[in-house]
Parts: sequence; C-alpha cells; structure tokens
Amino acid sequence: MAVNVKQWLLGKPLETKDLPHQAISRPVGLAVFASDALSSTAYATEEILIILALAAGVSWVGAGGLTLGLSIPIALAIAVLLVIVTISYRQTIYAYPNGGGAYIVARDNLGEVPAQIAGAALLTDYVLTVSVSVSAGVAQIASAVPELLPYRVQIALLVIIFMTVMNLRGVKESGRIFAIPTYFFLTMMFLTLAIGFVRHFSGGLPQVTGVEPHHVGALQDLTLFLFLRAFSSGCTALTGIEAISNGITAFKDPKSHNAAVTLVWMSSILVTLFLGITFLANQIHTIPSESETIISQMSRTIHGEGSILYYLTVAGTTLILLMAANTSYADFPRLAALHAGDGFLPRQLTLRGGRLVFSWGIMVLALASSILVVMADARTTSLIPLYAVGVFLSFTISQTGMVVRLRKIGKLKPGEKIQGLETVLEYDAHWRQHMAISAIGAVCTFVVMVVFAVTKFASGAWFVVILIPLLVYAFFQVHHHYKNVAISLSMGGIKPQITTSPMRTVLLVDGVHKETVRLVNFAKSLGHDWQAIHVGVNPERAQQVTERWQEYIGEGELIVLPSPFRLLAEPIREYILKLQVEHPGCYVHVVMGNLVMDTFWEQTLHQNTSLIFNLSLSRLENVAVTTVPYQIHHQKKHSETV
Amino acid sequence: MAVNVKQWLLGKPLETKDLPHQAISRPVGLAVFASDALSSTAYATEEILIILALAAGVSWVGAGGLTLGLSIPIALAIAVLLVIVTISYRQTIYAYPNGGGAYIVARDNLGEVPAQIAGAALLTDYVLTVSVSVSAGVAQIASAVPELLPYRVQIALLVIIFMTVMNLRGVKESGRIFAIPTYFFLTMMFLTLAIGFVRHFSGGLPQVTGVEPHHVGALQDLTLFLFLRAFSSGCTALTGIEAISNGITAFKDPKSHNAAVTLVWMSSILVTLFLGITFLANQIHTIPSESETIISQMSRTIHGEGSILYYLTVAGTTLILLMAANTSYADFPRLAALHAGDGFLPRQLTLRGGRLVFSWGIMVLALASSILVVMADARTTSLIPLYAVGVFLSFTISQTGMVVRLRKIGKLKPGEKIQGLETVLEYDAHWRQHMAISAIGAVCTFVVMVVFAVTKFASGAWFVVILIPLLVYAFFQVHHHYKNVAISLSMGGIKPQITTSPMRTVLLVDGVHKETVRLVNFAKSLGHDWQAIHVGVNPERAQQVTERWQEYIGEGELIVLPSPFRLLAEPIREYILKLQVEHPGCYVHVVMGNLVMDTFWEQTLHQNTSLIFNLSLSRLENVAVTTVPYQIHHQKKHSETV
Repeated sequence: MAVNVKQWLLGKPLETKDLPHQAISRPVGLAVFASDALSSTAYATEEILIILALAAGVSWVGAGGLTLGLSIPIALAIAVLLVIVTISYRQTIYAYPNGGGAYIVARDNLGEVPAQIAGAALLTDYVLTVSVSVSAGVAQIASAVPELLPYRVQIALLVIIFMTVMNLRGVKESGRIFAIPTYFFLTMMFLTLAIGFVRHFSGGLPQVTGVEPHHVGALQDLTLFLFLRAFSSGCTALTGIEAISNGITAFKDPKSHNAAVTLVWMSSILVTLFLGITFLANQIHTIPSESETIISQMSRTIHGEGSILYYLTVAGTTLILLMAANTSYADFPRLAALHAGDGFLPRQLTLRGGRLVFSWGIMVLALASSILVVMADARTTSLIPLYAVGVFLSFTISQTGMVVRLRKIGKLKPGEKIQGLETVLEYDAHWRQHMAISAIGAVCTFVVMVVFAVTKFASGAWFVVILIPLLVYAFFQVHHHYKNVAISLSMGGIKPQITTSPMRTVLLVDGVHKETVRLVNFAKSLGHDWQAIHVGVNPERAQQVTERWQEYIGEGELIVLPSPFRLLAEPIREYILKLQVEHPGCYVHVVMGNLVMDTFWEQTLHQNTSLIFNLSLSRLENVAVTTVPYQIHHQKKHSETV
Repeated sequence: MAVNVKQWLLGKPLETKDLPHQAISRPVGLAVFASDALSSTAYATEEILIILALAAGVSWVGAGGLTLGLSIPIALAIAVLLVIVTISYRQTIYAYPNGGGAYIVARDNLGEVPAQIAGAALLTDYVLTVSVSVSAGVAQIASAVPELLPYRVQIALLVIIFMTVMNLRGVKESGRIFAIPTYFFLTMMFLTLAIGFVRHFSGGLPQVTGVEPHHVGALQDLTLFLFLRAFSSGCTALTGIEAISNGITAFKDPKSHNAAVTLVWMSSILVTLFLGITFLANQIHTIPSESETIISQMSRTIHGEGSILYYLTVAGTTLILLMAANTSYADFPRLAALHAGDGFLPRQLTLRGGRLVFSWGIMVLALASSILVVMADARTTSLIPLYAVGVFLSFTISQTGMVVRLRKIGKLKPGEKIQGLETVLEYDAHWRQHMAISAIGAVCTFVVMVVFAVTKFASGAWFVVILIPLLVYAFFQVHHHYKNVAISLSMGGIKPQITTSPMRTVLLVDGVHKETVRLVNFAKSLGHDWQAIHVGVNPERAQQVTERWQEYIGEGELIVLPSPFRLLAEPIREYILKLQVEHPGCYVHVVMGNLVMDTFWEQTLHQNTSLIFNLSLSRLENVAVTTVPYQIHHQKKHSETV
C-alpha cells in the first residue's frame, strides 16, 4: 500500500536512459532561468522603503517626507551595480560553455577552499531563496485576501510541501509550462507600469489610501549607516542573476552565445522593472505595511480597488515568486550533487531516485527552508538580512576566479592554447580589458558584501557569517572521512592472497518452536561446529527452554548465558569474545531467527531483536551475523479453533 | 556519549533481583494511594460552579443568584455516592487480597470482554488523570503567579517531561517522600477550612473580590439537564478512589484489613474536604475564572491577599495535583503490562527497562497525556468531559463482577470452599447483604456513567464513548495475532525430524577493495558453492568492477545484474528466485559486506544498504542473509598524506 501511495504521489519510476537531453530556446531560457532574478522586484523596493521608514516614520508628508524619496537614488545605484555584474558574468558564460557556476569557476582557478566557500554560500542562498520567495508570495496572496493573513506560515508550508512533491515527481525543466507564469508576470507588470506612467504624466495618478503602516519604534536619524542599510536591502534585487551561468548547457547551440544574449535581456528587464516600480512607488507614496505589499498598493492605486487588473497583477507576482522558489529546487540538488561527487557532502546526494531527480537534495532543501519559514514567521523582512550575503560572496569568488584565469591567458603567446582543468585556455588579445571588467565586478560585489554583512549584522547577517565557515568546515570533515575510508579500503595495487579460516556457528535461541527447528536445520546445513546459546533474562524461562530443547531438538549443546541486568546483546558479545580467545583465527558465525509478518503493524507487535543484534555485534572483528527469516502468514479464521 | 547521557538522566541499570518487596504502613499507604482521589477536591467544586454559571451568569447577586448555591445539594449527592462506592469497594478489597483492580475482578468473574472493557476504560482514565491533574496544577501556579498564565501549556509539558524522567529512573514507591506533599496538602487545607469556618461563624468572612470571571455566552435556562451536567462534573471527585484496591499487596499484613481501613480514612477525608470547600466557596461567592482557581480565591479571601498562608495553601494544592498525576505513572504501566502479559497489548509493555520500570508504558503514557494537554490548551475544563466516564465504567464492571462472585458464593453449602480462577470462594452467611451492597453500588455508578455520557456527550465525552470500543477492538486484534503466531510456531508436541539441505552462497559485491577480499575469504571459508553478483546501476562502473574482479580476485564468477530503474534489492530478489527454481530445495545464503564506522555521524555518510537488503530479502523463503562487518577505524592525520 505504501508503494501505491508513493506511486500516486510521485509517479512511476523512470529508467536511467530517460534522463532528459534538453535544448531550449532563448525565450524559454529566459522563462526558466529568469524567474528568480525578476521575482526580486516584488520585494526589493519594499525592503528599501522599510529601512528608510525607520528614519522617515510612516508618513510621506511629515518631517521625513523627503527621506523615503531617497529610494530613487538607491535604486539607481543598484541598477549600476547590476549592469556591472551582468557585463562581468557575460564573460564567464563565454569562458565556461559547459556551465560556469561559482563552484566550478572557483574550483578551476582558485582551488578547493574557495570552491567550497562559494558552494556553501550558494547552498545557503538557495535555501533562503525558497524561504524568502515563498514568504513574499504568501504576502501577495494575503494582500489580496486579508482573511488569510493569520495563516501565512501554514500556507507557506503547504506551498513548500506541494513544490517538494512536484519536484520529487521530476518536473521536466524543458517543459514550456515554465514560460506561462514568467510571461504572464511580465505582461501584467509592464501593463501596470505603462498605465501608471500614463496616469502619472497626465496628472491623474492619486496617492495610495487605506494602508495600515508598519509599527515603527522611535524614529532614528538618517545616518550614512541607515542609508547603506537601505542600499543593501535593495541589493536583493541582484539575487538570481547567476542562474543562467549555471545552466548554459541547457541552451540550444551556440550555447554560450544564446545564454549570454538571454542574460542581457534578463538584466535589461530587471533594471526596467526595478526602477519603474521604485519610481511609481514614490509617486503614489506607498507605505511599508505588514498587511499589504508595495506591489499590491501600487497596482491597487493604478488599476483601482478590486479591479480585475489589480487581482491579475497580484496573481502574476505571486506566481513568479513561487516559480523563483522552484528554481532553487533545481539548483540546490544539482550543486549538492556536485559537492557530493567531489566527496565534500554525503554520497547519498549524488543518487537519483526513482524519478531520476536528486531526491535527497530536494528533501534537505525542503526541510531547511521550512525551518527558516517557521522561525521567521513567514515574514520576508525578517529573512532579508540573512539573504544576499551568500550571493555576493559567490559573485566575488567567481569573478576573482575569472581574474586569475585571465591573467593566465595574458601569459600565453599569440595563437597559443593550453588545456586547463575544465576548459581550454586560448590566447586573447583583449585579455586586459576583460580582466579589468572582472576585477571591477569583483571589487564592487565584495564591497557590497561587506556593506551588507556590516549593516545587517545585528539583524540577522551574523547567522550567515557564522554558518558559512561552519559549513565549509563540515564539508572538509566529510572530505577527510571519505579520503580515510578510501585509504582503508585501498589494496594498493597488490593482488591479495585469499585464504580460508576455520568457522564456528553460534545459534541464538529465544524459545523452542518451529522456527527453532528451521534454525537448527540451517546451522546443520552450514556444516561447521555449532552450538546454541540462550540469554537467560528470566531464569524460570531459561530452565523451560533448556527442557524443551532436550525434548524437541535433542542434539547439539544449548548454553544458557545469565543476564541479571536484562540485557540481550551484552552477554552474547562477551561469549563471542571468549570463544575467539579459545579458538584464535576463527570466524564466529552468529545465526539467529527473525519472525517476518505480513504487515508493518503485525511486525511492530514483535521485538525485532535481529536488527538490534546486527547493530550491536557489528563492531566485533571476524564475526558475521546471519538472520534466517521465518515467514508467518495470516492464518485463516478457522485455524483459531485448532 | 549517548550511554553517559542516559545514565546521568536515568541512573545506573539495576539487577532483576533488586525488584522492591515493599510493605507499607497505613499512613504511608494513605499518602501513596490517596493523592489522586484527594487532589480532585482541587477542581471538583470549580467544575460544578462553571456549569451552573452557564445559567447564573457571573454574578452571585443577579437574577441567577441562587443558582450557584445549588452546588451545595449537588456536592451532598456526590458525597452520598462516594460513601456507597467506598462501602462496596471495601468488600472487593477483602475478596481480592492479592489485588482487586477492575481488570482482575472482571477477568475473574465476567470473562475476557468485560475485563478488556474495564482495562481500556482505566487506561484511558490514567492518561486523563495525568492531563487533568497537571493542567489543574499549572492553573494553581498561574493563580499565584499570573505572569505565567500565557505559558501554561509549556509549563505543563515540562512537568510531564520531568515526571517521565523521574519515573524512568524508577521512583521507589515505598519511599516516604510521597508522604510529605500529601500531608502538607492536608495540613494546609484543613487549616484553611478551619480558619474559614471560624471566620464565617464569627461573621468576619468577606466575599471574594477582584476576580476576572469566565466569559459566559448567552445565559441558559436552569434545566434538569444543566443540573445533571453540573452533578456529573462534580463526580470527578470520585476518580482515584479505586487506587487502593489496585495496590493491596503493597500494604503490611494483614493486607486486606489495612487497605480497607485506609480506604475508609481516605473517603472520610475526601468527603470532608469536598463538602467544606463547596460550602465555603458558596459563602465567599467565588466566581469561576480562567485566570484564578476557586482554591486560590477561597484561600486568598480566608488568609488575606499575598499572605504566606495563601501561598502555602496554593503550593500544597499544586503539589498534591502533581502527585496525583504521578500515581498514573505507576498505575498505567502496571495495568498495560497486565494486558500485554495476557496477550492483548504489545509484548514490549511487559519488559522492564534498565531501571526495572516498565519503560514502554511510561513513554506511551507521557506521549498520550502530552498530546491531550496540547489539544486542550492545558485547560482543565476542556478535559473534564472526557474524564470520569472511564472511571465510572470500570466501577460498574468491577462491582458487577462482585455481584456475580457473591451469587456463586451464595450457592455454596455452609463451610464449603471452592477454588476460583484467582481466589478461593468460601461460604459466607451474609452473602445476600454483601451482594445487595455491590449491586446498589453497580447500579448507582452505572446511572452516573450514563448521566455523564449523555450530559457531557457534545462537549467531549463522545470521544471517550468512541475510543473505548475502538481500544477493545484493537486489544482483541492484538490477541488474535499473538494466538495465530503461537499456532504457527507450535510443534504440536511432536519431535521434528531435523534434516540438512544443500546450500549455495551468493556474494553481493559493490566494488572491489579490501572489504571484498574479506567477503570472498568468508564465502570460501563457508565451503559451499559460491558466486558473486553486482547490481549494475551504472553500466560503466559495472564494467570497471568486472575488470577489477578479474585483476584482484581472479577466482569464482562475478555476474552483473542490470538495473535500469536504479533499484538495488529488486534485481537480487529476481536472481535468487531464479536460482531457487534451478536448484530446488536449496538454501540460498546471501552474504554482503557492511562498512562499520567508529561514530554515528561517520556511519550516516555511507549508504548502509545492508539493513535495506535485510528487510527486503526477509520475505523470501529459504533465504538467509549474512552481513560481514568491516570495521573502519579513524586514521591518524598523517595517513592523509599517503
């Protein structure tokens, strides 16, 4: 029955040869890879305003009236940063046609430690992408349907569970279904901005009304620190622009070119949306609020309260946010499998489940992001300080890797080619310009990362600042372990001498009945010296077992081991150790029965000691443990009267 | 390390011969067994008032002024019932000197089904005793320290966890420590009542002030139904008076006489306290409240706000309530072990843990009562409708059992004795009077049970009315299962012929390394025909394993089983089935390796497939599964450089 439920939920298993060999066009590529980046426009403006409101208060017309307006220069600065990173990543895409994620670029140019740091940073941020995007998506829903506000954590968890099941089923990434929400969102958002700008320039755009503002404590001074805090909040707009560089191989040939063009489209759209939303939000004087998002306030003001266009805009925003969370379900397991393949994470992460997806990675992501959602009470603002540090760290490492790579290229002679670890390095006359671009990108993202970590440290970034080194430490511990095991198992290229050893069979006997007969039969069939032992937890019962052994088995030797502390495994261990002293170099072969029931519930009514013995005897050297199953099938009713 | 934590928490393991052989005096017996019954005075009066307030409203002087006063006649009626049940149970104590709980009396006189019903009812009520008593105890604490009110669920759960750990340690029941809280409570309560009565009769007893009343909805009419509902709420005062009849063997000789005298003492104290509290609660016009208990209101009014005597009274009441919960930790596991010993509950419940207590029963009780506390939000009033139905059902069954027993005695000739199942039945000239007493008791408790179930049905009793039959059904399913297994295993008294069978060894090979050498060594040592198989999830790897096998092992046969769906166990199953067709009557001995690491965390980095194989191959007949452990020890740092 469990199998049926699993098949209904996840679908039939797939053969390994069915692994998809996809090749997607630029418009589909935009839809598949851009949702994470584009969705951040749903909250980036809002997060800037929330910080500025600490100095401005909740009113646009009060003392701080101009303060919220600072969001426009901040947005412009972020747009410049975005352009720099885009140009820099374009180079990476051409340099790494087989996939140029930060982990691969760092591993190729900087070595193991920076690669693991970049990987840890990205894995952390993929988890946060799920938590942030789902929380922001639920906030959109709650803006349109305020009755749902008290249930946001529950709704967010349901969404995560749904996405987990869908991804365990294995949503085909090539599916055009991804295009629908992305283009629906873009249509609604550009329509909203267009109408908004027309109404603004025709002088007919009102200010927003009926918003319940955030509770702001005592007003703070508008310091440089607060300004930088607002800036770093807005930098969450950049999260997700690395997605295309991870997925170059998914594009049609010429892969690098198509991927690079898509990246430029994506960044252009992102800048346009982000600046447009920030500008209009300023014009209509949106106010950060716990119960209504900026997007909802803006489209409500532009389209009119309760209009169908309002609901469609909010629906589109919700959809793109959920799509963004969904991209982490592809990225996280893939990156985790890369780490695991290199021996830095548990091997199980490299195994594809029945539906060909990395099931373990999906489950780990679902669990970690659910915990974050619960801890943050599904509030986007509580999660933002944890977010983006990792992304900017990986940006910095990746671009630094490119600088190192381009320096190597600079040393080549004209026309020369050398084989690197991942790619071919080829002479390039313009290496200086390229290196300058990567270096500028690296410096910018590094500065933003430091600004982010410092200004957001107290409100949550400390967690990530501590977490990433711990993860890297854990990765290397795992690596160390696997290396040790490989050394322990290695035969060093020498063909071993395979000998045989004498063997003694030890039978574990709990009672004397049909199963015992099967056990003795097995022990005799093995054909070695054998003896039976019974752990005498209860002396009266031990006496009874001895008598029944004489009566029904009548051969071999049954030894009763006393167990005053009612332990089962300990007396057996001691007995085996004694036996090994008496018969040195001998294998001890422990044989025990195992009652096997038809159903799980029937099985729980029995002690299932064989698993316990297997575990507790496994530490002894030269001891093998055999279970002889004895199947008990459900008796027909009439047998009850026998 | 896990072992050390367990020892620190639970103490060192104890030997079986250390089972206590206690014999306690009457005053200690009163303390040990009476806390459950006496503690109900802490909430019984309050529960009556809560129901009456539905008709009276929150005010004593308003339209319903007289209504709350009805609590006095209700309390008198409950006192009469208590006297009847006491007299009836006194007879049971004399009839069953080796313990006369409802389960035993029913099993002895009425058969399996009534015994299981009585047992199910009692087990349910033991769980409720923990939930109700802990919730009521926490309510006392929150009355004295109102700041703790929002955390009552958390406090209640902490109390349950603490009690669970203490009981897993095995609190010695004979310990006089039990006497302290009981006698402290009695001292404080009688002192409070005495001062209260003196102040009342001297005219100096004020009415209570500053109580925030329960939110009562629209006032209801004072119907007979409501009156009976209030009566049944008050009947919770009777819970726990069966405790002494369960524990007769704990008393000093003459056991029955000492137990019976203690029962009479206990009931007398119980009646006195219950009536005294109800009377004074009426005089000072206590008002049911969410934030302050009646006991707190009463002692605050009598001793004065913030006086030391007030705090001592509340502390005493809290202690007795927690002691009452603790008695369930002795009763529930003991009764569950009785059921399990008769084969109606999982056998594991009969096993004594390292500290000689029934660990499984304690854990089940802790879990079930915690769930109830969380579901009821630690509100006593929400739990009361579920409570007491079970107790009155077991009272009824037990006394009906006594009626049947006394009818049998009535058929004996003067001086005649016959051996019953549990006890000796002896001629008794007064059997008619005794039978009349038991019959009156049975009828009274039956009527109360029906009144309780009907009047409380909608507010929660339905749950218990459905639960008890379900439990009884489950008990018989378990019993049916154990009977079937016993039949399957039975040799029917015939000495079996023990033969031997031919054997084939099948080696599971994942890779070729040092562990594989150990495996082949073991297989050769067994001395039967053997072959190795490799499940080819990855065709390239399968090829590599085959080549390495030729190179390093170079003997035997390695067969690669293809596995396009990446399954591990399924191809092996199919291969074994094929082998059994080719070699009929042959044992298939599957041998596999198992990497054993030094620590749990290291172990989690490996796939641990041996457990999976053990489970999935256990359903095949004539197949034994052997694991050959291969211990990998932590390498010294320098080996990393090898």
